[in-house]
Amino acid sequence: MTPSRIAITPVTAVTCDESFQVIPDAAIHLEDGAITYVGPAADAPEFTPHETFGGPHLVAMPGLVNTHCHAAMTLLRGYADDMALEEWLQTKIWPFEGGLDAEDIHWGTQLAVAEMLQNGVTTFADMYFQHRRATEGLTASGIRALPSAAVIGVFPDVPGQVAEARAWAREMKGAGEGRVLPSIAPHSLYTCDRDAWTAVIEAVEEVEVPIQTHASETRFEVEEVRRQWGATPIQALDELGALEHHLIAAHCVHLDERDMEIMARPSRGGSAVRVAHNPTSNCKLASGVAPVPELRRRGVDVGLATDGVASNNRLDVWGEMRLAALIHKAVSFDPTEADADAVLRMATLGGAEVLGLGDRVGSLEVGKRGDVILVDFDKPHLHPLHNVVSHLVYAVDARDVETVVVDGRPLFHRGEFRTVDVEQAKAEVQRRARSLARKAEASAG
Amino acid sequence: MTPSRIAITPVTAVTCDESFQVIPDAAIHLEDGAITYVGPAADAPEFTPHETFGGPHLVAMPGLVNTHCHAAMTLLRGYADDMALEEWLQTKIWPFEGGLDAEDIHWGTQLAVAEMLQNGVTTFADMYFQHRRATEGLTASGIRALPSAAVIGVFPDVPGQVAEARAWAREMKGAGEGRVLPSIAPHSLYTCDRDAWTAVIEAVEEVEVPIQTHASETRFEVEEVRRQWGATPIQALDELGALEHHLIAAHCVHLDERDMEIMARPSRGGSAVRVAHNPTSNCKLASGVAPVPELRRRGVDVGLATDGVASNNRLDVWGEMRLAALIHKAVSFDPTEADADAVLRMATLGGAEVLGLGDRVGSLEVGKRGDVILVDFDKPHLHPLHNVVSHLVYAVDARDVETVVVDGRPLFHRGEFRTVDVEQAKAEVQRRARSLARKAEASAG
Repeated sequence: MTPSRIAITPVTAVTCDESFQVIPDAAIHLEDGAITYVGPAADAPEFTPHETFGGPHLVAMPGLVNTHCHAAMTLLRGYADDMALEEWLQTKIWPFEGGLDAEDIHWGTQLAVAEMLQNGVTTFADMYFQHRRATEGLTASGIRALPSAAVIGVFPDVPGQVAEARAWAREMKGAGEGRVLPSIAPHSLYTCDRDAWTAVIEAVEEVEVPIQTHASETRFEVEEVRRQWGATPIQALDELGALEHHLIAAHCVHLDERDMEIMARPSRGGSAVRVAHNPTSNCKLASGVAPVPELRRRGVDVGLATDGVASNNRLDVWGEMRLAALIHKAVSFDPTEADADAVLRMATLGGAEVLGLGDRVGSLEVGKRGDVILVDFDKPHLHPLHNVVSHLVYAVDARDVETVVVDGRPLFHRGEFRTVDVEQAKAEVQRRARSLARKAEASAG
Repeated sequence: MTPSRIAITPVTAVTCDESFQVIPDAAIHLEDGAITYVGPAADAPEFTPHETFGGPHLVAMPGLVNTHCHAAMTLLRGYADDMALEEWLQTKIWPFEGGLDAEDIHWGTQLAVAEMLQNGVTTFADMYFQHRRATEGLTASGIRALPSAAVIGVFPDVPGQVAEARAWAREMKGAGEGRVLPSIAPHSLYTCDRDAWTAVIEAVEEVEVPIQTHASETRFEVEEVRRQWGATPIQALDELGALEHHLIAAHCVHLDERDMEIMARPSRGGSAVRVAHNPTSNCKLASGVAPVPELRRRGVDVGLATDGVASNNRLDVWGEMRLAALIHKAVSFDPTEADADAVLRMATLGGAEVLGLGDRVGSLEVGKRGDVILVDFDKPHLHPLHNVVSHLVYAVDARDVETVVVDGRPLFHRGEFRTVDVEQAKAEVQRRARSLARKAEASAG
């Protein structure tokens, strides 16, 4: 494995815990993957590290959390943009996805993991098909993840899909030294019927894993679910009993008053619906703008997310932070909405809470796992320094990430990946994407 | 000076001219600052360069154009965010700006020039006070710019300000081997009265330089101008005769039907009002979202802009491209709005046209000046490559800029600045910003 004792010093530490401290001249100690000290370097206990990171211009913070992603869709980056939704899906996305095999999805996921690590993302929730092979690769990479077994009602053999999801979730519990947490992902209420949902809920009751799904993303979806279920997506989930489990819902753009009341209800140490907010994807697909400031005021847990690359086209939580900070101000005509503290929280501890990991990661606190990133502030675009948190939300971008440590293990440092073969991932994805595009065009034509 | 013959090959060239060609395996030749060849490398004429740039994974495109900026406001980066507009201005921005002297503004501008070059911006329009010293510095940097002499009605001695603006504009014509084009910048219709505007218009009539101003940025401004002038800002500018000159208006968020008709009228080789669209600033200050797709359909010239760092907090036209592509889709519920071609055009040739430089820069065409940037596509987040233009708008960011050439002169290459002393700029800005913040807090407190 890896050096079991890591020192990070000197740094400015932004804890992102409840007290949201900014500690200058700090030290952070990681032992056997856990944080054993965070505080002023002058007060740090004796420590003999195997490896030391840090420097006077570096800011340490918890790794970013990406609460909703379809990692393998890196294969589709830039394949089709700026199209009406139905045309885009039917003539471009679905024909391309129809050609994907498990190796394509594995390599697409490997590239996604490399991109996320480089961008300072240390935890992500994933939702895609052919999950077994892809999960092997991401487990090996050392990143923290919630992969899922998808259940898609429009695909054949839904009972078989649920049985596979249940078996796989049971096998995976505790995988990757606890870094990889299985979940089950019924696609949505408009693509999975009552039988499918009932079977999924039985499965998660038994294996005790989170549910990931999409809810209330578009106006069309809400209308369609009303037609099929006689209720909004959130209300249908409530009636199903799905909200008695840990449920992560991506999007939640189109909500009514009753939806928001249901979502805010306490459930299993969080809110009844935990929201993966995807500002870029919601804009790019013209879905609308989720009422995130209102949800947060009501106590709903909200994290940030990139969604898949086809609707983004990046896996960059810095970009999601910035857009979240901007768009909620624009649509409310209120410049105090989505302030820097709130946004940074959504990208770190808030995201961890959405994924049920709030007691393990998301902040720099003794006893939590060692998911730490270092950001280099010695750049023209980060001068002068009036306020560290403002810079993290409004001025830093992915290029400023110097070092990424997950579970006490350095995975990325100064442009070098320590676990992912990024050159192979780039080459495989380039070759496979080209061939998949040719096949898709032949099948669409 | 510099090597007078530069070859850029091999590259993929994205011309951004009317035909919007993407030329693989291309070569670009620059001689004495001008483009003498763009096309397939195989067809290129014999050429003996002094210096060669390029590589198989590099994409060459015209440098980005930033049509509205207050460069020296880098000093305020992160000084105050997320506040109600009046409180922000009165308790933070104005007290800070009240302490600025010419050296502060010079160093703030130097840092802005470094940041913009690093981000691939080769041309920018600037609007700030103490323009003489700052303009000397930016002229020396080699960047292309439209600095301006400000006229601010709420400052003392408006006739003196206009006289200075006129004298300086006359002196500056042709400065920096033609790269630096003076303009006059009456701040707005709510801060400059009829006498001030009339004097400015007389001055630009005489010295033939563009006018830069702010118009229709906020609802408050439109109401205030209606009260003072009995007309909307655009209609007041029209009545003044300002639109018979080359007028660059920043923002143009709150417009009525008559405003848009006036703006689209032909005038001096462009539209009567040429718009600097500032998507980030308009979001961050909660001004709203400018109706840019509609303006472009009507034939109004629109370029992208960062505004000053206090309302951004970056000088990054990649970010403005991405936000423009996203926000117009979100607010219209139409994913075909602001497509990648349209957005890339606003950042290049469209921006050049707004600034009156459409015949000199903004595209890679023989006879134009050699403002070329190289973007490194050999990155995880730029794989696979289905579509170069999609990547330039949705996936590339500032970290991918490898080389920046302005007027045939390489100013930035692989992290190194050739003309700006970036270490000194960072240190001066840090020191001055800290002292200015202390002064501002003392004066506000």
